Amino acid sequence: MAQIRVGILGATGTVGQRFIAMLEEHPQFVVTALAASDRSQGRAYGEACTWRLPGDIPTPVRSLVVQAPRPPLDCDLVFSSLPADVAGETETAFARAGFAVVSNSSAHRLDESVPLLIPEVNPEHLALLDGCGAGGGKRGFIVTNPNCSTVMLALALAPLAARFGVEAVAATTLQAVSGAGYPGVPSLDITDNVIPYIANEEEKIERETLKILGRLNGDRIAPAPFPVSAQCHRVNVVDGHMAAVRVKLARPAGLAELREAFAGFAGEPQRLGLHTAPAYPILVRDEPDRPQPRLDRDAGRGMSLTVGRIAADRVLGHRFVVLSHNTIRGAAGAAILNAELLVARGYLPGAGS
Amino acid sequence: MAQIRVGILGATGTVGQRFIAMLEEHPQFVVTALAASDRSQGRAYGEACTWRLPGDIPTPVRSLVVQAPRPPLDCDLVFSSLPADVAGETETAFARAGFAVVSNSSAHRLDESVPLLIPEVNPEHLALLDGCGAGGGKRGFIVTNPNCSTVMLALALAPLAARFGVEAVAATTLQAVSGAGYPGVPSLDITDNVIPYIANEEEKIERETLKILGRLNGDRIAPAPFPVSAQCHRVNVVDGHMAAVRVKLARPAGLAELREAFAGFAGEPQRLGLHTAPAYPILVRDEPDRPQPRLDRDAGRGMSLTVGRIAADRVLGHRFVVLSHNTIRGAAGAAILNAELLVARGYLPGAGS
Amino acid sequence: MAQIRVGILGATGTVGQRFIAMLEEHPQFVVTALAASDRSQGRAYGEACTWRLPGDIPTPVRSLVVQAPRPPLDCDLVFSSLPADVAGETETAFARAGFAVVSNSSAHRLDESVPLLIPEVNPEHLALLDGCGAGGGKRGFIVTNPNCSTVMLALALAPLAARFGVEAVAATTLQAVSGAGYPGVPSLDITDNVIPYIANEEEKIERETLKILGRLNGDRIAPAPFPVSAQCHRVNVVDGHMAAVRVKLARPAGLAELREAFAGFAGEPQRLGLHTAPAYPILVRDEPDRPQPRLDRDAGRGMSLTVGRIAADRVLGHRFVVLSHNTIRGAAGAAILNAELLVARGYLPGAGS
Amino acid sequence: MAQIRVGILGATGTVGQRFIAMLEEHPQFVVTALAASDRSQGRAYGEACTWRLPGDIPTPVRSLVVQAPRPPLDCDLVFSSLPADVAGETETAFARAGFAVVSNSSAHRLDESVPLLIPEVNPEHLALLDGCGAGGGKRGFIVTNPNCSTVMLALALAPLAARFGVEAVAATTLQAVSGAGYPGVPSLDITDNVIPYIANEEEKIERETLKILGRLNGDRIAPAPFPVSAQCHRVNVVDGHMAAVRVKLARPAGLAELREAFAGFAGEPQRLGLHTAPAYPILVRDEPDRPQPRLDRDAGRGMSLTVGRIAADRVLGHRFVVLSHNTIRGAAGAAILNAELLVARGYLPGAGS
Repeated sequence: MAQIRVGILGATGTVGQRFIAMLEEHPQFVVTALAASDRSQGRAYGEACTWRLPGDIPTPVRSLVVQAPRPPLDCDLVFSSLPADVAGETETAFARAGFAVVSNSSAHRLDESVPLLIPEVNPEHLALLDGCGAGGGKRGFIVTNPNCSTVMLALALAPLAARFGVEAVAATTLQAVSGAGYPGVPSLDITDNVIPYIANEEEKIERETLKILGRLNGDRIAPAPFPVSAQCHRVNVVDGHMAAVRVKLARPAGLAELREAFAGFAGEPQRLGLHTAPAYPILVRDEPDRPQPRLDRDAGRGMSLTVGRIAADRVLGHRFVVLSHNTIRGAAGAAILNAELLVARGYLPGAGS
Repeated sequence: MAQIRVGILGATGTVGQRFIAMLEEHPQFVVTALAASDRSQGRAYGEACTWRLPGDIPTPVRSLVVQAPRPPLDCDLVFSSLPADVAGETETAFARAGFAVVSNSSAHRLDESVPLLIPEVNPEHLALLDGCGAGGGKRGFIVTNPNCSTVMLALALAPLAARFGVEAVAATTLQAVSGAGYPGVPSLDITDNVIPYIANEEEKIERETLKILGRLNGDRIAPAPFPVSAQCHRVNVVDGHMAAVRVKLARPAGLAELREAFAGFAGEPQRLGLHTAPAYPILVRDEPDRPQPRLDRDAGRGMSLTVGRIAADRVLGHRFVVLSHNTIRGAAGAAILNAELLVARGYLPGAGS
Repeated sequence: MAQIRVGILGATGTVGQRFIAMLEEHPQFVVTALAASDRSQGRAYGEACTWRLPGDIPTPVRSLVVQAPRPPLDCDLVFSSLPADVAGETETAFARAGFAVVSNSSAHRLDESVPLLIPEVNPEHLALLDGCGAGGGKRGFIVTNPNCSTVMLALALAPLAARFGVEAVAATTLQAVSGAGYPGVPSLDITDNVIPYIANEEEKIERETLKILGRLNGDRIAPAPFPVSAQCHRVNVVDGHMAAVRVKLARPAGLAELREAFAGFAGEPQRLGLHTAPAYPILVRDEPDRPQPRLDRDAGRGMSLTVGRIAADRVLGHRFVVLSHNTIRGAAGAAILNAELLVARGYLPGAGS
Repeated sequence: MAQIRVGILGATGTVGQRFIAMLEEHPQFVVTALAASDRSQGRAYGEACTWRLPGDIPTPVRSLVVQAPRPPLDCDLVFSSLPADVAGETETAFARAGFAVVSNSSAHRLDESVPLLIPEVNPEHLALLDGCGAGGGKRGFIVTNPNCSTVMLALALAPLAARFGVEAVAATTLQAVSGAGYPGVPSLDITDNVIPYIANEEEKIERETLKILGRLNGDRIAPAPFPVSAQCHRVNVVDGHMAAVRVKLARPAGLAELREAFAGFAGEPQRLGLHTAPAYPILVRDEPDRPQPRLDRDAGRGMSLTVGRIAADRVLGHRFVVLSHNTIRGAAGAAILNAELLVARGYLPGAGS
């Protein structure tokens, strides 16, 4: 089967580099175009990019010349990790030019006609695309993945919402510095320190979670009806976002039932055997001191959440701690899994051509 | 006025060292005895102790010989920072021998007849001592300060409880490594990592807070009647505990009212002008990214809390972030302030004599 | 071909865990016995061991019962990562009982009859074993690998010694906390800090380097004749030791020649294609800011050194910076590569039987 | 006595903030003007500056309006911590306009007519100013302090050069992130990592050290004649630069003699009792694991060096480890001490008027 030719917008950034690393040996996608909004335009990627992941730049992309992020690019699909301030117009332009845009940027996440997708949680939201003629291959479209903290919160809540119903959620996050990109958080700000603030993050988590867990109603998503509260902190960790979550369930639930709901959860990516899908979307650890970012972030090659410390909570009823790799399941891996689902559902062949 | 002669139990530990540093130039207390349960017994403190605070061991205590933590010691009052497993019996023995015991250890905090004291919050709980004849100078007694996280939670809640009433509290902590003593947390566990577990900490916070905010009822404390939920994390910070707090108030309150309740709070230590009392028990910062451990832990020479990020909360109504220095306001400074209040209230002269 | 059955002494420690992780899918070795000197004796490894590497304990060893580190054990070869204070007698006992002992401990490294082996550097030192009848399979023997810092210094110097001659070496190390084992370095000592001291480390590096680079002279090793100076520091890094090295060469050498000597270096493990041998023992990076522990420690699956910043030095003539993974090439991987060379050279079959 | 009115160029940067904090209660200097090359121009300092030191902005400077860094400013002397790229021309312009410029920037350090001053080491180099008519009050002048690592190296070498003679020096530094200013080093680059590179730092240390230890020869400085080698590393420490130094002395010296040379060293600031001068420029610690950045950087209120690990070295003869606070003795404090010496020597009254 012919590989789908993909371009990466924001190719020199931290998430762009993750895209390149994760796509290096992907069976369905081959990187044929790179674009960035910075000074790297016009230079070979191997020279223009300061690679910040362990190891080296994959050989095939070294000689690709970095282009401006404007359509057309020599590809069928673009992965976008552009900065928020340029992503909005750029992604729209690519979609209008007929490209499938699979974006990690926040610009279009809350657009009414754009799916905010976690393939294990709300694959039915892809129906939003049908009105665009996307399935017909005539026009392009945009599919987004959630904010790096939202994805772990919404994915962890999905089995609880399905089994017990959710009435309120209070999540307190401890987020890694890689979530801020590069150069991102100055070391002077975070060494021997915590910063109890990430711009716009609390609002993103509160809104995106409700859209993801919302119900498809014709060609709209009706947001889930419960309140979500997020308090966000930056901590001195390289990779791996953690959230301490308290949840009020609609029905009584024993701790063993909660554990089983998490551990037994699977979705369409697992049923379809998508390439980037982990065997288990949620791993449960029973040690009292897990999950931990350094020990658990790479679970399922960075695509599995790890949940631990499931317990009764005096205020909201239940609580747990969840962790995920913020630049894999929380960014590049999320987008790639979205693209794989689009392929499996037949949305991709022909897009951009 | 003659200084009160004090002994320090657990003198070689991290809190013991803080006691010695804070008492170096204290106008009311002079260190005349040191004791520890470790191998330092029988040696001069200057040789036996590996000093882990910046600077040097204060000269006057260098030549004091470390003794076993058993009464009698050559002093009138003992500050105790013994490990929990030896503190229980040892502190009881000192109290029975007629000493005033001002303890930072957890062993007796929940004893019915022992005040768990924050001088700004519940000075009236000292009445528990009156039944012991403490005021009469016949017998010794024990006064404790809270756990290093509880003290900041209870002190921050005090003005809210007084002005608005509190109906529920959910606190998520990010705690410094110095809270675990020395050697404490292995660097292998905390570098590039977070540990979502501190043994017994969540239970301590949940129970101690309710005792402190409880009401004196004859010779008993009736715990405050609202639920408290704590989720605790160890983060890679040297000093300074932080808590993200959500609170349900009994009465509606605007954010400006909350701010004013925090910033305008003062208690008996401020009215009495106690030596270790900060001018303001709670400082409010309005920058969006404060409080931060490294920037705010030394506020009020480590005795002031810093509160920030006061906001509405979708789940419990209000929220804020609070920070305090865990080995000063959270340990040694808390105990010294307790002792200063005991002096001012007349409980100390004659104790131990 | 039948696998060689191996036991691990010190199986619950950080290096012991690395042994188990690296041997999980090894084609020649199968773990059949685990021993430790701690409280884990008598319990199944899966329950007794607090696993501190990412992921989980490999399934096959979970049910092995941890035994006391005394011969006999049900295996042909033992890997030893025992603490220095128990390694000396224990390893001797195993060797006398006929076992091949491949040790990472320091106890026997400087023994006259024990090879201190880096397979790429001094495989000929294995001749020390011939006097013991080791090749004949009658008796056991001990083979050691160097200290975690020595291995990178000696391996980096080997091509320089061979091509240009070495007259003096001054190495300043920046070492990771994992080198101290677990619990090892307290976080209170290393957060926002550097410790310019590692007990006995400077002496070990100075002596071991000269033995490794020494010449086999009959049944003795004549140490290399040049002075080595080491200054050692512990820094806040999880894994990856770095050394800033100045070297005085015996012959003039251009920087390009040095680069070529490093990059072109290979030894017997590469020629023999040993399983754990990296394709390149030394990788050279030309970026001005490399090597870096987090980016380069996993090069060659932790078995390749990374050298950078090759430059002229005003005092000693040349300088460079070298980095290696201290618990892989510097410990468990070093021992496993040693064992692979022993197999290839015919020292192992029959040992211990 | 009237205070000297000072301006601060680069007032919003990390060193500018240190200047303001250190001058808050200075007996001789009062801050009357603030300038910066960034967007803060035209705004009150209290609003324009994001204060990154513990505590708050001193009240007196809050209302000063930040100006462009161009003469004239309402002051007699300017302290400069401008970025290197703007410092050159700006400082020259201020000197030509008649101001005394006391600079922490590197632009003019190696100018032939500019003293590169450490008051304890080379106060006689101030004679370079006499040719400028500086003493006569007609024209302005520039005096610089060394790079933050050079100051500790040159100050530590001074007593050795005086007592034993120095023939070669090899220094390996471990430098704090605050040395790179703000935002400076990205946390992604330094968490769980070391960077073996600081742009131009090795060259600066090698050249500046020789100028400082050079001899005044008429109106020129003849650089010291020995080779200096520096290898520089950035480590995950907030404040406090460390150097591991090997030194070849001209005469034999016992370790006790070295210790005495360091500990007994004093210079003109100590004799004159300058306000910012520490009682002891160099403190010697005999514990095997000192100096350490977190424990020793504040010695002498940040103005004392701490030397430890004095030992024989197999390659160069002697070695030691030295530490100093890089933004106090290595930057703002160095410049203030320089200014105090200028006042004491009569260079300042009338300058700029």
